[in-house]
Amino acid sequence: MQTYQAPLRDMRFVMHELIGTESLVALPGCEEMTPDLTDPILEEAAKLAQEVLLPLNVVGDIEGCVYENGVVRTPTGFKEAYKAFCEGGWTSLAASAEWGGQGLPESLNKQVEEMLCAANISFSLYPGLTQGAYHALRHHASQELKEIYLPPMVEGRWSGTMNLTEPHCGTDLGLLRTKAVPQEDGSYLITGNKIFISAGEHDLAENIVHLVLARMPDAPAGIKGISLFLVPKFLVNPDGSLGPRNGAKATGIEHKLGIKASATCQMSFDEAKGWLIGEPNKGMRAMFTMMNTERLAVGVQGLGVGEAAYQSAVFYAKERLQGRSLSGAKHPDKAADPIIVHPDIRRSLMTMRAWNEGCRALAGWVAREIDISERSNDPERRQSAEDFTALMTPVVKALLTDLGFENASQAVQIYGGHGYIRDHGVEQYLRDARIAMIYEGTNGIQALDLVGRKMGAHMGRFLRPFFHPVSEFIEANKDDAQIGVLVGPFAKGFGALQLATGHIAQAGLKDPEEAGAAATEYLRLFGIVALGYLWLRAAKVANAALANGGASEAEFYKSKLATARFYIERILPQAAPLLAGIKAGKAAMMAMEEAAF
Amino acid sequence: MQTYQAPLRDMRFVMHELIGTESLVALPGCEEMTPDLTDPILEEAAKLAQEVLLPLNVVGDIEGCVYENGVVRTPTGFKEAYKAFCEGGWTSLAASAEWGGQGLPESLNKQVEEMLCAANISFSLYPGLTQGAYHALRHHASQELKEIYLPPMVEGRWSGTMNLTEPHCGTDLGLLRTKAVPQEDGSYLITGNKIFISAGEHDLAENIVHLVLARMPDAPAGIKGISLFLVPKFLVNPDGSLGPRNGAKATGIEHKLGIKASATCQMSFDEAKGWLIGEPNKGMRAMFTMMNTERLAVGVQGLGVGEAAYQSAVFYAKERLQGRSLSGAKHPDKAADPIIVHPDIRRSLMTMRAWNEGCRALAGWVAREIDISERSNDPERRQSAEDFTALMTPVVKALLTDLGFENASQAVQIYGGHGYIRDHGVEQYLRDARIAMIYEGTNGIQALDLVGRKMGAHMGRFLRPFFHPVSEFIEANKDDAQIGVLVGPFAKGFGALQLATGHIAQAGLKDPEEAGAAATEYLRLFGIVALGYLWLRAAKVANAALANGGASEAEFYKSKLATARFYIERILPQAAPLLAGIKAGKAAMMAMEEAAF
Repeated sequence: MQTYQAPLRDMRFVMHELIGTESLVALPGCEEMTPDLTDPILEEAAKLAQEVLLPLNVVGDIEGCVYENGVVRTPTGFKEAYKAFCEGGWTSLAASAEWGGQGLPESLNKQVEEMLCAANISFSLYPGLTQGAYHALRHHASQELKEIYLPPMVEGRWSGTMNLTEPHCGTDLGLLRTKAVPQEDGSYLITGNKIFISAGEHDLAENIVHLVLARMPDAPAGIKGISLFLVPKFLVNPDGSLGPRNGAKATGIEHKLGIKASATCQMSFDEAKGWLIGEPNKGMRAMFTMMNTERLAVGVQGLGVGEAAYQSAVFYAKERLQGRSLSGAKHPDKAADPIIVHPDIRRSLMTMRAWNEGCRALAGWVAREIDISERSNDPERRQSAEDFTALMTPVVKALLTDLGFENASQAVQIYGGHGYIRDHGVEQYLRDARIAMIYEGTNGIQALDLVGRKMGAHMGRFLRPFFHPVSEFIEANKDDAQIGVLVGPFAKGFGALQLATGHIAQAGLKDPEEAGAAATEYLRLFGIVALGYLWLRAAKVANAALANGGASEAEFYKSKLATARFYIERILPQAAPLLAGIKAGKAAMMAMEEAAF
Repeated sequence: MQTYQAPLRDMRFVMHELIGTESLVALPGCEEMTPDLTDPILEEAAKLAQEVLLPLNVVGDIEGCVYENGVVRTPTGFKEAYKAFCEGGWTSLAASAEWGGQGLPESLNKQVEEMLCAANISFSLYPGLTQGAYHALRHHASQELKEIYLPPMVEGRWSGTMNLTEPHCGTDLGLLRTKAVPQEDGSYLITGNKIFISAGEHDLAENIVHLVLARMPDAPAGIKGISLFLVPKFLVNPDGSLGPRNGAKATGIEHKLGIKASATCQMSFDEAKGWLIGEPNKGMRAMFTMMNTERLAVGVQGLGVGEAAYQSAVFYAKERLQGRSLSGAKHPDKAADPIIVHPDIRRSLMTMRAWNEGCRALAGWVAREIDISERSNDPERRQSAEDFTALMTPVVKALLTDLGFENASQAVQIYGGHGYIRDHGVEQYLRDARIAMIYEGTNGIQALDLVGRKMGAHMGRFLRPFFHPVSEFIEANKDDAQIGVLVGPFAKGFGALQLATGHIAQAGLKDPEEAGAAATEYLRLFGIVALGYLWLRAAKVANAALANGGASEAEFYKSKLATARFYIERILPQAAPLLAGIKAGKAAMMAMEEAAF
């Protein structure tokens, strides 16, 4: 059964105890972000997710979106839910007050996003894409365009999209063919075909603001000749009201493995009127502002669905009676024990739990650094926060989505045959989770981003805001009476990451294919170590809380300690073979001729 | 695109070079199983798979089976394909000549099965279940029942099923409730409900022979009170013609994640006439004969779909143009290089390839030992072959199906967004592959079987036919001029397996939960080491062939060497964290209270 209760206690733990309230309330504009203010917001978001969005998740999967003559109908209930969503102010949560937003920090926003994705990934994509488009416009559009487009987008009355992919190019956008011909009035006429456009057409918003990558007539070939354009579905009158339909329309939707309630559109632009965003031929830069927002959001999708899968698995593991505990019947009154008594089921559940809580901590850490990078008065601190975010964006995107899918698969396994049929809804998690490993740059591309652009940037500067605190933590805690026993194995894992970093830096300098050959394993190694660090910090916080007499919540903190230990014992050792693979290099991988495959 | 060419060269390699023709032709009844005889059979099977079954794979997925008023209609083309399948003699391939079969060895049969599963898992289930039922009846039914039922089953005119699962019990069959009331004529009246019955009802065969687990009125509680019954869909007249309909009918079919062309039925038995198979209350024993056959067959399903996924991924990786090689453009005449030039794509393809070929070798080894256990004149050799098969059955089932799913997921990833939509057919592999990890005993159950029943059986006797040849191989080859460099790392992996075995044997003796906590990791460790051993043997064969001037096939053998090296360098190191996890024991896993999940 699809069941979901937002993990509010753990979210509070991450925001206020693990990452800590202090660094949040120290930021200009965040002075009031104490639990008094943030907890009720999270509780409201939880209600929305659990009561409005979750019940629509299966409905959306079964009905899917329907395309007819250029119009896309979302599944039953989506319109009403979207209306409630906008009216509740959820579209404006993190947007700047300048454009009608509430200006709340990412530290809060990311947790709200997690709930939405856990309850209904398909639904979350509609406002999610708008958020990305909002960021791109806010940073790169002219004041005039911002004034026209941002307020209704923040209200949710208009939604956003990103139009990158074309049939022959996805990762390699340098190949794209969509044309933008300048007009005398300063606008452009956009012509071309795009595919895989999430929310490209739907019936939730009054207007759709497409951000479209296209090429001007005199643009240089390849990636350096791409510009970004704003192309609305309906042209906008000077008073902000909707004018005539623009030449942008959906020509079909995809039939997909999952996220069936999300309209994935084929788009046709036929001399559609558009406006340049940012500088000519610098479209990729503007698009990356959007893409980085989206990449973190997609990571959180993985976390959300991973949490929902975990909870649904726990529900079944407590309910399904099958076999007896190997240590003697636990429920002799029943025909059999619930399967949660079996170690192999525990192994699955603990694995999912350790991944999810670790990923939540990582997302919380990155969200806090985003807040710092955007708000801190200290330029040095802002810079290090920006470096950290740049470094961690591909890690969050790839790691959290890989694990979301793995968790969904574990949940299916716990349900056994009942997980493979539609009735319980867990196979939907598997199908929905799979896309997140692909879109906004496949996870392989994330890995290349990490080793190619982030690892070596500015002589390794991006690595420092991660490596330094981790080193210091190990030094400070290696003899800790309580967690010291876990710090030793962790230091080994961190050592593997340091060795891998040095190895790739050297080998990749001589031969970039060596970096490419190591990329995926390096990203996973990075992620595993980052989560290990956060688990140790969580254990430290838990020990302190228990020592300070947190008796009323002793169970919560003890679970943290058990899960931290599980992570260090059972998951962190995976660091070793990743280093071994990296050190093996590209030779065996590249030895075979193409034709021999 | 779903594309599949049966890997005939690799199948020949496994059968004749790696496992070797000698041990096959030495068996009574197999004297003629030289390549002259086996190659044409494999070629015919390949044609059937590629030309008849593969084109129906997508059709079956889209149409699915349709249930109406107790009748199940298979998708378009399945009836014709099944007819061709029977007429081609494929249902009788491995059946004994005594019952109209061709008596061909498992060494050949398993390779044919792989092709069928690669082309169309759903289709393969119909004859596959019949094979399992054939084995159970052949070993446990009375001569009279065998004479009535086996010949038409071998012909494929009648098909078979296994009816185990009930709504409230799958793994824990001790809970089952279906009743069998003895009648004066020696038959029984069977009443109860079963679910998840593959091929429980369909339109391919004239009659369906259900093997049904049920409980007699005076039977002991639990697993020791279960008997096996033969319950035909149509009663059979003394002359073998079909009589009236029996009280066994399908009441519905499941809507599933995948294998949609396989009818997964809910069955109702309402005083259906049945006959006891084997002894009263010993139904599990008889069922296990069937189940072991099926478990190996399910493993081969994983391999088949993994191979099809690999080939479909290779097809796309050679065709999709995106980006340039990091070592300089490989196809400067094209707009971009095919993605197979990128190391990260290579990593995926090599991983899939190393798994598939390793798994094919393992399946080939086990198949050969089955042949030996059934045919050898040497009782000691027969015993060791039987021990080996018992040991390896859970490994083959769980490892090959886990990897089949992983490979399907890798294939989706290589296709990117194009893998997530239906058009290319690779997402079907993901959906189809997922069931194999579940049915015939979930992979967690396989792991418990390995550590609980197989590892310690007869003081570790089952382990010997694996551990002894591996130890000898290491000793004999550690200084080999060519493969010696790979033997060192392999010996480390094997050492991890030995340590893990000793650890579990000791810890599990004191506390069976410790064995349960280690089971899944132990099975994977076992599988990884077994494949490593086979990869080293393959490398040895390849080196010898190259030295003997196998110039015309140099590419084939060189690819073996490259893939062997890739396996040892990139995959085998995964042994280390598995041992670490096993040694960590159950403590962290079992620490939390049920309520804390």
